[in-house]
Amino acid sequence: MKLGATFITFEGIDGSGKSTQARMLASKLLADGYDVVLTREPGGSPGAEEIRSLVLEGDPDRWSAETEILLFTAARRDHLERTILPALAQGKVVICDRFADSTRMYQGLSRGDLRGIVDQLHSLMIGREPDLTLLIDMDPTIGLTRAKARQTSEERFEDFGQAMQEQMRKGFLLLADEFADRFRVVDGGRTPEVVAEDVTRLTLEKLA
Amino acid sequence: MKLGATFITFEGIDGSGKSTQARMLASKLLADGYDVVLTREPGGSPGAEEIRSLVLEGDPDRWSAETEILLFTAARRDHLERTILPALAQGKVVICDRFADSTRMYQGLSRGDLRGIVDQLHSLMIGREPDLTLLIDMDPTIGLTRAKARQTSEERFEDFGQAMQEQMRKGFLLLADEFADRFRVVDGGRTPEVVAEDVTRLTLEKLA
Repeated sequence: MKLGATFITFEGIDGSGKSTQARMLASKLLADGYDVVLTREPGGSPGAEEIRSLVLEGDPDRWSAETEILLFTAARRDHLERTILPALAQGKVVICDRFADSTRMYQGLSRGDLRGIVDQLHSLMIGREPDLTLLIDMDPTIGLTRAKARQTSEERFEDFGQAMQEQMRKGFLLLADEFADRFRVVDGGRTPEVVAEDVTRLTLEKLA
Repeated sequence: MKLGATFITFEGIDGSGKSTQARMLASKLLADGYDVVLTREPGGSPGAEEIRSLVLEGDPDRWSAETEILLFTAARRDHLERTILPALAQGKVVICDRFADSTRMYQGLSRGDLRGIVDQLHSLMIGREPDLTLLIDMDPTIGLTRAKARQTSEERFEDFGQAMQEQMRKGFLLLADEFADRFRVVDGGRTPEVVAEDVTRLTLEKLA
């Protein structure tokens, strides 16, 4: 068994293919002899999944933005304590579909003053940043078509128009600049197999 | 209708009679012509009650202390936004059975380093302190007997021995010293009617 102890996150707009890439990377690393944990946010541990349901089910306006950030931070804390940190301590590679950068982007976009709150809560209660964040970047027109085709039951994060998707893309690219040491931007507008080659190469550079 | 716009909280160890006193005060103020909202924590709004259930049901160890503080803070934020602040804005007197001082006391007692986290989260996400906090203080021997006699289904906060109850009493008295401007300590070791006389007098002084 190869020791990894590396925390890798995938970020990107809906339909960018990041979940597919996360799965493909996990499969590739397992085949290469790494011990891998593939997880996701919001959720990723039994408690965090319960909080996820509380946030995502029901009327979108049932929680204020501030309460929602607190609930997401509670879920992330649980996920970190119960899933991510124990796996890293055992030398595993942790691959997570969305993490704190999604909160920074979505909440910052919805109201400018929220980014400061998100950052202070993260610093106080989470602390840990990924070792590598792979941003699957793509033209939002393609992303939106893919997202709509998926028809998931959790519509909240999908129900955005194209202008909003464009803003989200820009939001993620700004985060990639802000945290340039750990972000790598991958062109997601190609076939999944070609995208996966870039993802694998960037990951193996980090694991080396 | 008399305008109050005053936020009054009751604190005290289990079995101290604070819930009874909160109800008696609400009844007295209503009779005197005030518009009153009687509420409680954890809970106090539909969303906060859902979070309360998530925290209090199931295995006591299912959440870490930090995650629990985040969930309680989320519940408090919802309670504040949806119940307390709107009522105060309408000139009502808000009477709340437990508030942030309970979190300060319980979490601070369970682990010394948590008090700082509780305070920072409060400052960042809640901000509002009560105008008047009535601490119903009493000998824990009497409190414990009363609490056990109640046989509630939520055993978590009741399942403490006498030494722990004594520590809690001290914890609340320390908070009363720390926030002396808004805390008033009432001797709860008397009949409810006599205790209520003190509670009413202190409240009317604040409302005057």
